[in-house]
Amino acid sequence: MKLLLINPNTTETMTATIEAAGKAVAASGTEIRAVTAPLGPASIEGFYDEAFAVPGVIQALREAPDADAAVIACFDDTGLDAARSFAPFPVVGICEAALLTAGQVGKRIGVVTTLSRSVVPLEELAGKYGFAERARIYACDVAVLDIDHPETGARAKIEGEIGRAIADGADTIVLGCAGMADLASQLSSVFGVPVVDGVAAAVKQAEALVTLKLKTSRRGAYATPLRKAYRGALAGFAPEA
Amino acid sequence: MKLLLINPNTTETMTATIEAAGKAVAASGTEIRAVTAPLGPASIEGFYDEAFAVPGVIQALREAPDADAAVIACFDDTGLDAARSFAPFPVVGICEAALLTAGQVGKRIGVVTTLSRSVVPLEELAGKYGFAERARIYACDVAVLDIDHPETGARAKIEGEIGRAIADGADTIVLGCAGMADLASQLSSVFGVPVVDGVAAAVKQAEALVTLKLKTSRRGAYATPLRKAYRGALAGFAPEA
Amino acid sequence: MKLLLINPNTTETMTATIEAAGKAVAASGTEIRAVTAPLGPASIEGFYDEAFAVPGVIQALREAPDADAAVIACFDDTGLDAARSFAPFPVVGICEAALLTAGQVGKRIGVVTTLSRSVVPLEELAGKYGFAERARIYACDVAVLDIDHPETGARAKIEGEIGRAIADGADTIVLGCAGMADLASQLSSVFGVPVVDGVAAAVKQAEALVTLKLKTSRRGAYATPLRKAYRGALAGFAPEA
Amino acid sequence: MKLLLINPNTTETMTATIEAAGKAVAASGTEIRAVTAPLGPASIEGFYDEAFAVPGVIQALREAPDADAAVIACFDDTGLDAARSFAPFPVVGICEAALLTAGQVGKRIGVVTTLSRSVVPLEELAGKYGFAERARIYACDVAVLDIDHPETGARAKIEGEIGRAIADGADTIVLGCAGMADLASQLSSVFGVPVVDGVAAAVKQAEALVTLKLKTSRRGAYATPLRKAYRGALAGFAPEA
Amino acid sequence: MKLLLINPNTTETMTATIEAAGKAVAASGTEIRAVTAPLGPASIEGFYDEAFAVPGVIQALREAPDADAAVIACFDDTGLDAARSFAPFPVVGICEAALLTAGQVGKRIGVVTTLSRSVVPLEELAGKYGFAERARIYACDVAVLDIDHPETGARAKIEGEIGRAIADGADTIVLGCAGMADLASQLSSVFGVPVVDGVAAAVKQAEALVTLKLKTSRRGAYATPLRKAYRGALAGFAPEA
Amino acid sequence: MKLLLINPNTTETMTATIEAAGKAVAASGTEIRAVTAPLGPASIEGFYDEAFAVPGVIQALREAPDADAAVIACFDDTGLDAARSFAPFPVVGICEAALLTAGQVGKRIGVVTTLSRSVVPLEELAGKYGFAERARIYACDVAVLDIDHPETGARAKIEGEIGRAIADGADTIVLGCAGMADLASQLSSVFGVPVVDGVAAAVKQAEALVTLKLKTSRRGAYATPLRKAYRGALAGFAPEA
Repeated sequence: MKLLLINPNTTETMTATIEAAGKAVAASGTEIRAVTAPLGPASIEGFYDEAFAVPGVIQALREAPDADAAVIACFDDTGLDAARSFAPFPVVGICEAALLTAGQVGKRIGVVTTLSRSVVPLEELAGKYGFAERARIYACDVAVLDIDHPETGARAKIEGEIGRAIADGADTIVLGCAGMADLASQLSSVFGVPVVDGVAAAVKQAEALVTLKLKTSRRGAYATPLRKAYRGALAGFAPEA
Repeated sequence: MKLLLINPNTTETMTATIEAAGKAVAASGTEIRAVTAPLGPASIEGFYDEAFAVPGVIQALREAPDADAAVIACFDDTGLDAARSFAPFPVVGICEAALLTAGQVGKRIGVVTTLSRSVVPLEELAGKYGFAERARIYACDVAVLDIDHPETGARAKIEGEIGRAIADGADTIVLGCAGMADLASQLSSVFGVPVVDGVAAAVKQAEALVTLKLKTSRRGAYATPLRKAYRGALAGFAPEA
Repeated sequence: MKLLLINPNTTETMTATIEAAGKAVAASGTEIRAVTAPLGPASIEGFYDEAFAVPGVIQALREAPDADAAVIACFDDTGLDAARSFAPFPVVGICEAALLTAGQVGKRIGVVTTLSRSVVPLEELAGKYGFAERARIYACDVAVLDIDHPETGARAKIEGEIGRAIADGADTIVLGCAGMADLASQLSSVFGVPVVDGVAAAVKQAEALVTLKLKTSRRGAYATPLRKAYRGALAGFAPEA
Repeated sequence: MKLLLINPNTTETMTATIEAAGKAVAASGTEIRAVTAPLGPASIEGFYDEAFAVPGVIQALREAPDADAAVIACFDDTGLDAARSFAPFPVVGICEAALLTAGQVGKRIGVVTTLSRSVVPLEELAGKYGFAERARIYACDVAVLDIDHPETGARAKIEGEIGRAIADGADTIVLGCAGMADLASQLSSVFGVPVVDGVAAAVKQAEALVTLKLKTSRRGAYATPLRKAYRGALAGFAPEA
Repeated sequence: MKLLLINPNTTETMTATIEAAGKAVAASGTEIRAVTAPLGPASIEGFYDEAFAVPGVIQALREAPDADAAVIACFDDTGLDAARSFAPFPVVGICEAALLTAGQVGKRIGVVTTLSRSVVPLEELAGKYGFAERARIYACDVAVLDIDHPETGARAKIEGEIGRAIADGADTIVLGCAGMADLASQLSSVFGVPVVDGVAAAVKQAEALVTLKLKTSRRGAYATPLRKAYRGALAGFAPEA
Repeated sequence: MKLLLINPNTTETMTATIEAAGKAVAASGTEIRAVTAPLGPASIEGFYDEAFAVPGVIQALREAPDADAAVIACFDDTGLDAARSFAPFPVVGICEAALLTAGQVGKRIGVVTTLSRSVVPLEELAGKYGFAERARIYACDVAVLDIDHPETGARAKIEGEIGRAIADGADTIVLGCAGMADLASQLSSVFGVPVVDGVAAAVKQAEALVTLKLKTSRRGAYATPLRKAYRGALAGFAPEA
């Protein structure tokens, strides 16, 4: 099967991290293709960036009509509901995938994200996915694009927050940023608890949905977008259904 | 004070309805200016349209730097979180405003919206605003732009859903579409319960916030967007903070 | 319009504070009249005082048949449900008004109240208004009537609790006592976050409901009290409907 | 032990029903004394009546300083929080007692109350006691004082609502009015499910608390009322602590 | 009446503690019989032990067909739902009984249990009983069978957790292990708050249900087990209904 | 990888259905082995049967020390918490797996189970997994072992309940019994919505956890069972950790 990994921000190096994380866990028959959003912000930090990253996600979906499923590889599950309404194949978000994966190996989940401005958005997201009482969000106060810059001390800060989460009762950790994808197994060894990376988790969920032949329901909230005119710079996105 | 009413869709006739609803309740010192989103969908029906309507909302905010507050006049509170992060003045959503207004004159709220695809999105929104147990959503199955076309039987269908809501225990009704703004007082007479139009409710909330000298908190989730590059058709929206 | 501000306790100096807070934000056409409860406790601190303050609130409503709306200016929203059932005009509570106002400029609300015995009652109230997950209550351990006595160190204690709330993640502060009404703007400057005073917030909500021509629903829980005999000292309060 | 049963309304015949229900289940060493509220409304139907019934409940407590525990025998648990703050002995509410008793013999509870105006107040009460998802409220639309008047068809209407509750999935019934106390065993036979009367349930809870030597906590929300002046008709209720 | 107290673990000394706690509060006409589970684990610490303790609980019920009610005296309410489905008489759990008893004398409950592995199971149980927002679980990190061994420092550790709970806002304490039954009154004196022992609380609930002639509902989830074959070591437990 | 599918009941024909469902979706490198519980009930219908099925599940785990993961193939997720505490490899429940799979292709889930006695247990389970507001349970009133007997009319009854669920707003269906595993694709065609079979869903989750190298957390609630004596028929299950 063909799996599309969408990096909703426009930073290519992060796409490479995502692709590596995806390929590392893909099944033998799965062809992973990671793409960078063709338009939008260089990184997604908060509600504003998120809003402007959605058209890029949809554009990436449009350019991959032959995919069997897609993964949106930013931890705010950028545009997930819109993407599910649009795409003819299943779409998986890395936050949702990480939480439901973590929830099968633990009871209380500590999510370590980047900036403190993302704490409330992720609390809202966790609540939407049914994890209000099981997941708690921690911010390491490192910007998304600084995660893999050693001089920012990101690794130590992330470890500090994991320690705090465990002290608060977390038995399982979720890395709350696609840019942390490569740290999961090391951190798991250090802390002796499961550490879930959302990109890897989402790839397995996407494979599962494809194998199960499940497609997004067209009844209710994910009904096919109605045909109508779109004006201005976004006119090309008008639904043709 | 200057109040900006943003119609997040690109249909001018709906902007006129919104403006009339706003002007009808504005305080004497309030200057109402209703604008149509300069880009985006002709109407907002579901998650997909909503995503593409957000840049138009932000653009409208950018073009009104001297406003004292803004109202987003679509019942899905299109891009409200992004708008609050961006605008230097308070931003009010008509769904949130309608619910909290209705909640001060009643206990159980029936929200009558347009298409059934909007039921779940509005349930999620009501939940986010703390009305999960007090509000219930009903769809009259009339498209947004058909609301004021007599031949669609919209009025009768809306009344049918209000009747259902009251039979289910609602004591207060909220009209769940900006296009229904002109029906509130008539429907209130017919059914003998308060009927809240979100546009009018939101204008009063916006005036309240301005008079109270309250601005959106910059601590936490609504922190000012960080300066960074945006690529492609949306490059012009890159934050300059 | 005529707005009745009811101080549910019998301390006149507090009525003056309330009146000043109300007049400072009232619209030009709004006539503010603040009254002191004609019977009941000197201050309201906990469930017991609250119960005995309700008849005074109702009495104040009865003596103002020409009001257009009323505000109950104690942060436990003393007798709000009874008042809404009784009054022919809308009634607003300062706790409810403060929370819904704060909720439009922030995501996480720290409420600073007086004595620790009020923490649970306010948690219950916040829950009833849909803010269980968004608001957290802090007590500064100063009695209501000591709030404006410099020698009690009230100001420093309130600031201490605001600091704690912000450290816990609050982005917006609500002052949880009508006696703190005059501190809002100063505290907002000190802490750099919105600080909401309930009296001012409630005046704007009351004006909004009047302008929107909304009255309390008579269907359901707020139905007009049924005619029946009341015995003893409270006989005069028997409903005449 | 001495158990005080307080009828919060001023109708003596209802006190007799309550006393009989209490005596029928009291332990051998329990002395039941039922009293009628010395002031307040003839029946309690909705928020307004409830507010004016609280002083009568407190007065009844004051006149029984030698009681070992008290039961408030109206299904809205009239003034329960104030009573617990005041009384030197435990106080039990019949709604709380009925729900927690029913919850030990069943999973889903149908509460059948009198007028539809009481549905939302009881939903709020059930929510406060932790039964939001387990209890559902039904109104038989018979006034409190008409419950035992055969010509009102009360019995048939109550049975109709019990039938509806069972059809909706209730496995246990709670009678939501002290005036229905004598119907429990008959209705249980008719429907083949447990039917709980709150008065009887509360007597057993009160006996339990006394035997367990538990008293209301004075830390937190139920702290002893602070000494202060009360003005007017209610001056005599000023706390003396 | 005959009351069966089941110690779900197989440690006789603990049965003695349970019996003493039960007899200390039983009504004059109540005959208490405490039995040790005839099969299963020596103590119950976590999900695994709990699962293997259920057959012993059911066996104890089978061997007491003439009981009027039973109490399951382990704080995880071992097999309570199965026991209620099976027994012809009411069955009470000490966790449920303790919480609902504590909830009638306080608002915020601190539960002090043994090992930290029990925190989440008890959080889930408290949530099921409607106490998610009112109860918080603390572990003193002493194994169940070490509770009454002075050299383990259990008493000091329990007191430490009670202190923490009170500092966090608890006004009432529940002892979260049947082995702590004898400490309740002493700890209540030390801390000046109600301290509830589940065994004693459950005995009173069981007496209440018997006196009220309430039996477990056979409609819905507690329907009588259907006749069917059971294979292997547990064949003897096959339902005969 | 080696995947153990455990049929927690002792009916071999059902094991065959489960095995077929699992093999139909297993990845190429996955070796599926389905086993029948060596002890316990012939079918699991309600709390009582469930309790006696847990030892069989654990026994099946003990007999497969070389498995990489296990699936518990009964829709009440029989003994899942105990199994996770015990097994050295991840354990997946078909109810949890079905809900989280369905939740990625739809918003509102209708679960169709067998007998009405299972409705509340499944509501409790869905609530535990965070689906309280998204999933609703329907019973088709066919016993587990009658599901594949044409003369019981099971197929028509299941379709009837699916129709009811969709009318109530469900956009996605979950089959709430392992015995229905073979019906998913046909029913999806009939109703035009995704229909999820838990066995297939769980196999994919198990594969995902193995590939992601995630194991159950040993910190907190799933800590390794402590070494202690077990008495009687279950002595062989005593933990050896």
